[in-house]
Amino acid sequence: MAEPTRTETDSLGSIEIPAERYWGPQTERARRLFRIGSERFPAALIRAVGLHKWACAEANRRLGQLPDAIAEAIKQAALEIAEGRRDEDFPLPVWQTGSGTQTNMNANEVIANRANEILGRPLGAREPVHPNDHVNRGQSSNDNFPTMMHMAAAEVVEGRLLPALGRLHAALWRRSEEWAGIVKVGRTHLMDAVPVTLGQEFGTWARQVELGMARLRDAMPRLLLLPQGGTAVGTGLNRHPDFDRVFCEIVAGRTGLAFAPSPDKSEGMAAHDVFVELHGAMNVIAVSLNKVANDIRLLGSGPRCGIGELVIPADGLSSSIMPGKTNPTQAEALTMVCAQVMGNTVTVTVAGAQGHLELNVFKPVIIHAVLQSATLLADAAESFAANMVDKLEPNRARIAENLAKSLMLVTALNPRIGYDKAVAIAKKALAEDLTLKEAAARLGHVSPEDFDRWVRPEDMVAPGATLEGGG
Amino acid sequence: MAEPTRTETDSLGSIEIPAERYWGPQTERARRLFRIGSERFPAALIRAVGLHKWACAEANRRLGQLPDAIAEAIKQAALEIAEGRRDEDFPLPVWQTGSGTQTNMNANEVIANRANEILGRPLGAREPVHPNDHVNRGQSSNDNFPTMMHMAAAEVVEGRLLPALGRLHAALWRRSEEWAGIVKVGRTHLMDAVPVTLGQEFGTWARQVELGMARLRDAMPRLLLLPQGGTAVGTGLNRHPDFDRVFCEIVAGRTGLAFAPSPDKSEGMAAHDVFVELHGAMNVIAVSLNKVANDIRLLGSGPRCGIGELVIPADGLSSSIMPGKTNPTQAEALTMVCAQVMGNTVTVTVAGAQGHLELNVFKPVIIHAVLQSATLLADAAESFAANMVDKLEPNRARIAENLAKSLMLVTALNPRIGYDKAVAIAKKALAEDLTLKEAAARLGHVSPEDFDRWVRPEDMVAPGATLEGGG
Amino acid sequence: MAEPTRTETDSLGSIEIPAERYWGPQTERARRLFRIGSERFPAALIRAVGLHKWACAEANRRLGQLPDAIAEAIKQAALEIAEGRRDEDFPLPVWQTGSGTQTNMNANEVIANRANEILGRPLGAREPVHPNDHVNRGQSSNDNFPTMMHMAAAEVVEGRLLPALGRLHAALWRRSEEWAGIVKVGRTHLMDAVPVTLGQEFGTWARQVELGMARLRDAMPRLLLLPQGGTAVGTGLNRHPDFDRVFCEIVAGRTGLAFAPSPDKSEGMAAHDVFVELHGAMNVIAVSLNKVANDIRLLGSGPRCGIGELVIPADGLSSSIMPGKTNPTQAEALTMVCAQVMGNTVTVTVAGAQGHLELNVFKPVIIHAVLQSATLLADAAESFAANMVDKLEPNRARIAENLAKSLMLVTALNPRIGYDKAVAIAKKALAEDLTLKEAAARLGHVSPEDFDRWVRPEDMVAPGATLEGGG
Amino acid sequence: MAEPTRTETDSLGSIEIPAERYWGPQTERARRLFRIGSERFPAALIRAVGLHKWACAEANRRLGQLPDAIAEAIKQAALEIAEGRRDEDFPLPVWQTGSGTQTNMNANEVIANRANEILGRPLGAREPVHPNDHVNRGQSSNDNFPTMMHMAAAEVVEGRLLPALGRLHAALWRRSEEWAGIVKVGRTHLMDAVPVTLGQEFGTWARQVELGMARLRDAMPRLLLLPQGGTAVGTGLNRHPDFDRVFCEIVAGRTGLAFAPSPDKSEGMAAHDVFVELHGAMNVIAVSLNKVANDIRLLGSGPRCGIGELVIPADGLSSSIMPGKTNPTQAEALTMVCAQVMGNTVTVTVAGAQGHLELNVFKPVIIHAVLQSATLLADAAESFAANMVDKLEPNRARIAENLAKSLMLVTALNPRIGYDKAVAIAKKALAEDLTLKEAAARLGHVSPEDFDRWVRPEDMVAPGATLEGGG
Repeated sequence: MAEPTRTETDSLGSIEIPAERYWGPQTERARRLFRIGSERFPAALIRAVGLHKWACAEANRRLGQLPDAIAEAIKQAALEIAEGRRDEDFPLPVWQTGSGTQTNMNANEVIANRANEILGRPLGAREPVHPNDHVNRGQSSNDNFPTMMHMAAAEVVEGRLLPALGRLHAALWRRSEEWAGIVKVGRTHLMDAVPVTLGQEFGTWARQVELGMARLRDAMPRLLLLPQGGTAVGTGLNRHPDFDRVFCEIVAGRTGLAFAPSPDKSEGMAAHDVFVELHGAMNVIAVSLNKVANDIRLLGSGPRCGIGELVIPADGLSSSIMPGKTNPTQAEALTMVCAQVMGNTVTVTVAGAQGHLELNVFKPVIIHAVLQSATLLADAAESFAANMVDKLEPNRARIAENLAKSLMLVTALNPRIGYDKAVAIAKKALAEDLTLKEAAARLGHVSPEDFDRWVRPEDMVAPGATLEGGG
Repeated sequence: MAEPTRTETDSLGSIEIPAERYWGPQTERARRLFRIGSERFPAALIRAVGLHKWACAEANRRLGQLPDAIAEAIKQAALEIAEGRRDEDFPLPVWQTGSGTQTNMNANEVIANRANEILGRPLGAREPVHPNDHVNRGQSSNDNFPTMMHMAAAEVVEGRLLPALGRLHAALWRRSEEWAGIVKVGRTHLMDAVPVTLGQEFGTWARQVELGMARLRDAMPRLLLLPQGGTAVGTGLNRHPDFDRVFCEIVAGRTGLAFAPSPDKSEGMAAHDVFVELHGAMNVIAVSLNKVANDIRLLGSGPRCGIGELVIPADGLSSSIMPGKTNPTQAEALTMVCAQVMGNTVTVTVAGAQGHLELNVFKPVIIHAVLQSATLLADAAESFAANMVDKLEPNRARIAENLAKSLMLVTALNPRIGYDKAVAIAKKALAEDLTLKEAAARLGHVSPEDFDRWVRPEDMVAPGATLEGGG
Repeated sequence: MAEPTRTETDSLGSIEIPAERYWGPQTERARRLFRIGSERFPAALIRAVGLHKWACAEANRRLGQLPDAIAEAIKQAALEIAEGRRDEDFPLPVWQTGSGTQTNMNANEVIANRANEILGRPLGAREPVHPNDHVNRGQSSNDNFPTMMHMAAAEVVEGRLLPALGRLHAALWRRSEEWAGIVKVGRTHLMDAVPVTLGQEFGTWARQVELGMARLRDAMPRLLLLPQGGTAVGTGLNRHPDFDRVFCEIVAGRTGLAFAPSPDKSEGMAAHDVFVELHGAMNVIAVSLNKVANDIRLLGSGPRCGIGELVIPADGLSSSIMPGKTNPTQAEALTMVCAQVMGNTVTVTVAGAQGHLELNVFKPVIIHAVLQSATLLADAAESFAANMVDKLEPNRARIAENLAKSLMLVTALNPRIGYDKAVAIAKKALAEDLTLKEAAARLGHVSPEDFDRWVRPEDMVAPGATLEGGG
Repeated sequence: MAEPTRTETDSLGSIEIPAERYWGPQTERARRLFRIGSERFPAALIRAVGLHKWACAEANRRLGQLPDAIAEAIKQAALEIAEGRRDEDFPLPVWQTGSGTQTNMNANEVIANRANEILGRPLGAREPVHPNDHVNRGQSSNDNFPTMMHMAAAEVVEGRLLPALGRLHAALWRRSEEWAGIVKVGRTHLMDAVPVTLGQEFGTWARQVELGMARLRDAMPRLLLLPQGGTAVGTGLNRHPDFDRVFCEIVAGRTGLAFAPSPDKSEGMAAHDVFVELHGAMNVIAVSLNKVANDIRLLGSGPRCGIGELVIPADGLSSSIMPGKTNPTQAEALTMVCAQVMGNTVTVTVAGAQGHLELNVFKPVIIHAVLQSATLLADAAESFAANMVDKLEPNRARIAENLAKSLMLVTALNPRIGYDKAVAIAKKALAEDLTLKEAAARLGHVSPEDFDRWVRPEDMVAPGATLEGGG
């Protein structure tokens, strides 16, 4: 049973369109031509599309390029998109024209139809509101779509990713302070090394997250420069001389983000280096979080036959075969996200490197990857903070036991007896399964009394205490 | 207004579950713990999950590990999953436990509940069919989920990707034969070079696709080796000694694919090298298709101010600002897909490299990337074949014009007059804007008559004709 | 015939060492254990090694941790390394211990031997200057090597990469100004589009380079934070409390770069996020330069059968078979460099993501990739500036010819007659091989007089001129 | 003091060349134009260059395209290159013309000069042997260089990489057999799991290496298809019709590798998919080896405070600060190599994807990466086999201790008492620090006698023993 349709006609022909949908001929043709994959633009981009078109109409109105009535109808229709009320009218996949033209035209058509409806005309009328002449006035897909990309990315970074990283940073930092007094074995090359504190370990992870946030912030000024106003090829053909400035003021006012006109609009259309940069910052964050998650599962390995210094939270999930097994499932979800982000970095790199002359035509895949990575990192960081970091506990008994038997405490003797004698002590202890104190005494290098004075793990987690006169 | 729920209890506690859903406590807990992203497993994986569980029940029945009545109820419930009738009962994201345990338990719970329902018991009864003891009998997530990965990937490669590439290959090859007689300028370093035929260009692209198919087929024998039967750590603990063999026979019979038990089950659980390999083959295909698409848009550039030797099909889409502009939109969709696949290659590489001891815990992200890449390549290859290759036309006038003026026809003179004199002719022609024939005559190196006999583009597209005695 | 050797003994045994070399047992053992590849650390790193050790000795001297005589001998020996006079004494490959310990010990041994020699003792004496107790005093490979990495990278970025990019930027910008008046066809989707100026195209490329420099500069403050003073695990065990501060002052004074102690030394030892970040910035630069080089070879394609708007400089190189052929060889060298840098980004990402607890053990591969990428980008940018950008010429005749025949000039009519009529004109012109003016007149949409007033390419390269009243 | 020079002249001008070098004007110009980086082609490529030119001369001689005297002089000169005696005459960097033209011309010039010298003429004579007309007869850089790439890669894979992997496989397999009887704790999610044998763990790693070798072998048939005979654009212009066949016969005879003419020569010149494929196979190997090395260092972590089930060999290297510390340095060298190979995969992918029409111009960077990766993997695999695998020892006491206390032995009870009761036992044991037997008895689920009969680690490493009737 066929869906009811209406016929719409544009300059390139007539086509049947599902009767209830607001889109027009360009969208319908694209829908048929791009039956590729199931990936759609996320809500953040569709919101930016609506906001963008709303701001364009308002800018054109202020500059005398659109009559008030038409501008107001366009604005109302555009806001409906921004508010998520027209999601079903954006049926196109990511894998379409590389300029995002079809999604821009999709918006033009939906807005024109809806605006004409508001003004009492049927869908498909193409007047008084024309998708190109009015909704797209003074614009081109070529400057619109990258501007929407900038807007969506900036909002997701500011509104989702930075707060989520802040949440994770706070969780890690709290643990760092809480467990600052727990002295434990450090490990280098995965081998027993000199002592650290558990607080230091969480502090290092917190620092990594903090620096990741700084990296994102460094990219923001360039992300806030919008190519809007470049129209087709960066020259600004057919737009009002003040359109770029006014548009940015409107968008900045609405979003609270300091968007400003790019001084070289072509650069933001012909290339998308800023997204390669932004994704590069997310790549560093993925690298950082991969280490944090991996370290935590290493320290939590066990519970009885691993390192076992942290207790992984029991989360109510279990193995399908091994009864009562608790796994670091949040670390696994997070590291899988990191792997995706690292791959997306290459996707964006490859896409960014292949622009031709006045237009990079990998726009949809770039923004899809950027928004996916940002969302995944944000969600996973929050989940990891709440379901892992906040619920971890130290296994103090195991920590103390490990610390007591570590051979690397011998390092504190270096400034007292020299490196070569210290080596002899450590080798003897390992070979004969002695304590360091025993080995030192048997070799005659350090008396038990000196050993107790000189080798104190709690003195070994800061500079200076082990030096001559420091004991 | 809260959704109605029921209470279910397992060995780790009680929890409220949406009343209409078949999943159980493990799934519900996971749903709350993994609120990360919007990515779900595609239908191909859920189908494999159902098929897998159906085959496990049948294998256990045959081997006397499950009573007939329970086995039949499980099989019915599992087939419903395979047929896509329980999609709403698989609510978990890709970003979960890295073993896929939650999706395996999700299946166990849905099947147990549905089987008990079939047998007249309420949801949550956990008997007579128990999710672990019966549905998961002789299995572990650790061998189940990778086996599901192999099954889903093999079916998508055989059922979707290879046929789609075959379609593209046929389209390119048809053009190659059709245009075998069109002699045109070749280009190396993007600069004018000696002649080729248009058919040869399409033949080269067809050859790339053909070799890509061969690469996929080379990976299949390893992909068809299933780790099923390894249970928790590859040893086969708690399963019947013949379970692996019988399972593979059942699955092979059902799918028509020659699945067989892996001789080292641990290898397919602790590592997923075969997916890195398979994705590597797709990476080569992406590299190939990127070149094909890029070459076609280069040859189609224009229509008036580019190379213009191919006519890009008018597809009814247009620029939002530039009236009447036709763009190579299918090439753009395809190259964007290629960029995604290249990035996914890194995702799978990073994920594959980080397994620990008996289990790689990046399973969900790996299979997600593999199925995404396979599906995108398949869809895009078909779309490109139908909407681009099949509709291309040569611009014979432009081809002839370019050929006539190319300076590199001079190369045919090398065997007659030597390289150095040929250089002199080409340089003079370029500098003074002459034809080669004029330049050759003015330099006295070749008479016009000899030139006409020796420099014939149609003779330059095969070996031998230009050699002494070949004219 | 065997090379003469001497025997050296350390706490782990005795070994034969080539008699003329300054290295000791640790280096010699490592040389035998790591016979992998031919990659060595570049001069920039060896210089940093020498400078670092020189500064350590001076810092320890100032803080009373080393007697003056020993400190001065160490300093002299270390400076000889910094000055490139001990390159043959650093025989170890990149592929060694992941902490760079062997290269640090190599330095300790060379310096100890050389310092003892200066003080009148034979090689291998291990006193008065001991490689661990004196040369490595208050240090560990674990903080030394990453500090050397920071120092080497910062010097190469500041001393080589930024100046080289500045050179390329200046070259592009000069062209942008010089050719600001050349109006030409723009191209989007590789298809003819509305006009731009040749100056604009070079300006966009210059802008990309300028932003790349800004991205590098943004990473510098983090790169200048040194982990020196962390010793083995970031705690600073066995070093003087002021060592980190004094060391940084000395190095900053010597290099002119504002090095400062990292507030979390462990972060710079356990992780190397800042190198992932720095390489990410170079990845963006590779993406940018790939586009610049690719665009230039596109515009220079031909000379007769391509776009041909730029004249690729004849560089005296030629095809081995096609006489007189000029190729964009500099663009090819540059894009190959870009491919290497993009790959190295993944190398550094993978290496950065896999640190364990207190130590990332991928240090050598990270710094090798970072220095390789920086050097290659610097060299290639300079080569491209000097041998390509500076020598390009526009082909004004071809540019004018292309501009005149472009159909997309019709876009200027949008604000006058509306998009739909403009489409009709463009389609008619293309189908019937007419000029736009002829097509417009035949359709009755625009008179020839209006056409000449409204469609002026030179007015189409800036906003506003085509609007109502703008003509 | 300037180096003495001679003047050489070709069709593009005169230039000063160092008097002692055999290269000519094209090489000298390139040397000045490409001052980029320090990377040179490895010996394996230069050997292939010499062998290739030798075979071309012989093929042309057999086909009557070169007089015997000239052919013999060329052959002698070419063999000198193949034997490594002209390395100093190949001064060009990897970062040159993307077709490798300059290296092909370098060979042509060196051979022409040397052949003329052999024939009694001075360097620079250009006769009787001309670099283009004779040495390059019937060839183009465009088919020569990729053929050299195929030859070099095939020789390195067959001659170095496969044997080295075989060495590593044998070492791992020997351990697998040797330690087949050591039952130990398995680990999934890095958490304690059911038992495996140490032999199984080594067997899994061996299997990964074995499959990696199979993957390489699968790529060989495509790698052995040579594009030689395509000349400039794949058509075979200016070469004898039988040249491709005869050339391949000669090269196959000399190398023992079954080289054959590619049926589509353009495919091997315009694209290099086979190198993307080959590098993809090496990428899988890197993924495999990364896991092997990482697993071994995990099991060897300690010696006292980690897992400690393997004893990392003392290699005579030590920490610069921590006396007596032994580190898994070979694992670190190997995983660093893996990181480089993974990055090189992207380099080759990016390079392979960007060919234009009849020529991919990323040839040098592709072959450089391929040969680097193959060499590094080969060297590192051998080093890891000899210095790590062969010297590992199990710590039997630690292994037994861990096994005894593992809670996951409870899994053997599933088929006896059901999953839910087994969970209760495991939870109780963990919470109250009991043995499983104690917990089982206190809960009344299993008597101590049954426990001892049912829970036997040595029965848990194979299928079937734990099933009803299996005890």
